[in-house]
Amino acid sequence: MNFLEQTCQKIFPQDSEFRDKAKARLEQLALPHWALGDLMDLAIDLAGITRSMQPPCQRKAVVTMAADHGVVVEGVSRFPQEVTVQMVHNFVAGGAGINALARQAGADVYVVDMGVNGDLQELYRSGRVINKKVGPGTGNIARGPAMSIANARRAVEAGIEVAYDLHDYDVLATGDMGIGNTTPSSAIAAVITGRSLEEVTGRGTGLDDEQLQRKLAVLRSILAINRPDPHNGLEVLAGVGGFEIGGIAGLIIGAAAQRKPVLVDGLISTAGALIAYRIEPFVRDYIICSHRSMEPGHKYMQETLGCARPLLDLNLRLGEGTGAALAMNIVAAARAVLVEVSTFAEAAVAQADK
Amino acid sequence: MNFLEQTCQKIFPQDSEFRDKAKARLEQLALPHWALGDLMDLAIDLAGITRSMQPPCQRKAVVTMAADHGVVVEGVSRFPQEVTVQMVHNFVAGGAGINALARQAGADVYVVDMGVNGDLQELYRSGRVINKKVGPGTGNIARGPAMSIANARRAVEAGIEVAYDLHDYDVLATGDMGIGNTTPSSAIAAVITGRSLEEVTGRGTGLDDEQLQRKLAVLRSILAINRPDPHNGLEVLAGVGGFEIGGIAGLIIGAAAQRKPVLVDGLISTAGALIAYRIEPFVRDYIICSHRSMEPGHKYMQETLGCARPLLDLNLRLGEGTGAALAMNIVAAARAVLVEVSTFAEAAVAQADK
Repeated sequence: MNFLEQTCQKIFPQDSEFRDKAKARLEQLALPHWALGDLMDLAIDLAGITRSMQPPCQRKAVVTMAADHGVVVEGVSRFPQEVTVQMVHNFVAGGAGINALARQAGADVYVVDMGVNGDLQELYRSGRVINKKVGPGTGNIARGPAMSIANARRAVEAGIEVAYDLHDYDVLATGDMGIGNTTPSSAIAAVITGRSLEEVTGRGTGLDDEQLQRKLAVLRSILAINRPDPHNGLEVLAGVGGFEIGGIAGLIIGAAAQRKPVLVDGLISTAGALIAYRIEPFVRDYIICSHRSMEPGHKYMQETLGCARPLLDLNLRLGEGTGAALAMNIVAAARAVLVEVSTFAEAAVAQADK
Repeated sequence: MNFLEQTCQKIFPQDSEFRDKAKARLEQLALPHWALGDLMDLAIDLAGITRSMQPPCQRKAVVTMAADHGVVVEGVSRFPQEVTVQMVHNFVAGGAGINALARQAGADVYVVDMGVNGDLQELYRSGRVINKKVGPGTGNIARGPAMSIANARRAVEAGIEVAYDLHDYDVLATGDMGIGNTTPSSAIAAVITGRSLEEVTGRGTGLDDEQLQRKLAVLRSILAINRPDPHNGLEVLAGVGGFEIGGIAGLIIGAAAQRKPVLVDGLISTAGALIAYRIEPFVRDYIICSHRSMEPGHKYMQETLGCARPLLDLNLRLGEGTGAALAMNIVAAARAVLVEVSTFAEAAVAQADK
């Protein structure tokens, strides 16, 4: 048994005893029954995930996984491929959206090269980018598979390693960077949710109507050529995925194996979550869907993960982990409700009539 | 001209020059166009409100206005009236929902006695509750007016005074406590939005079907007896309002007069916002609708204020300012997007094709 399977063997459902204990306390808080709504549901999850009535939520990290995609030669993005590497430099310089939102949330940002098409040796040496490069970008999935099954496994295991290396953190969040990566993500969404390409495909970084039709045509080619078994996560990743998507799947698996909540960002991160879910269904209990992206497929992907209502819905469509970072404060708030709010008895407040 | 009118004369629409400057910068950020969605819209508002490209958002205060309501004798709440005073003590002790969520947001909590039915002298003396008591609770609005026009003005002016006293803060948030106060809030909602009582009335702290029907019957009596001019904010407040609702209206007016953003919480706070809006329509430019309450009337009230999409929708229905406190981190995030994210040129990132 190898590293991936060993890790999955450590993943169990949330602890029902701590869920029950949290629910019992929350029902006694000096407020109308369940009047803090989704925060209280989330507080139960935190207790169940961490096996604690004081879930650790203080130390937070966003992991932004970067990689390139051979499919960009088909004209599926309005941005040139070199933007992936340029944005990695922007992350390191602290000037990107994820840097601003992670700072605001009190979270550290880790940038991982899962497979960008460019030389980042200098950034590895300075310790500012984690080197997990599987290759210099995936194959063109409109013409063949994204990667071998062996490389799909390498990508996922690299993500697990990152999660383990970040063992000092209490809460992890996923993020992505990769020009063209809404295309493999929509392909993964169609394969795993069973929805049509029309339902799961959006405008990515800003396609017009004609460009969207082109992207849909490319996606039809992708699914005609690659026909992965939708129940085999590694096969879906190898067929139509991406290196950063595999890394995200691994990060989620690694978080779940350490009983840590993992905030999942937008379309690309949720594609990674679907891969992780197909590899090990129990990861679902550790995933917090942070927001609802403007990409139309996101809703169906979150439904497949059992999440009808993500925490935020703010018309975000950036990726990088920005929505996940923004939701970290809501996780901290949910913890505060469980830990800091007094019960009727503690506060000497009269209860409602029965 | 008296204090209220003097204050309203200081309220102008958002500054269009700073809105334009903010928009121009946000359009140049190194990300797909408007990919941080509602955060970017909010960042424009912050620039327009504060007349600054670096909107001050650091110092935050939640103001929780408490008062009692004569209408509780009609059986509109499941909680006894003494809970209002008990909860004031809970706020002071730091054990309430608002304390936990304000701490998490880095905000201070100020508790104001606008008219609770109880003696809080000791808490005034210790400086832990601000004394703006207009009276020991309103009249029973199912039998007559809530208060005189003179007291309605006093309540609003007290709220303005609180906003001025908090001049050191950059961002204010409204909150409420008052057993029975969803009933006057629904009455205000019906009068000002023009919606039916059935559309704007909910279960408050947890009424069952029979109790909800009773509340609706009481509300029909209220609107049969009190027929305020829906365009006269003070008249609506005097007829069917509450002291804390007047205080909230004043806080909003006082924030707008100082060009500060004010986060409005749930049903009761938004009733206060509607009163403020009828007194001085330009306040709308300073209001940030923090969340969508579970109370059905809230949506229509927010629409009247021009807010189609509040920041959060988490099934909250507590009040106290909890939703507003939770949204403070999103305000800080919107500021960070404007101030901290690099442009394409600054980050040396290639732009999309034109």
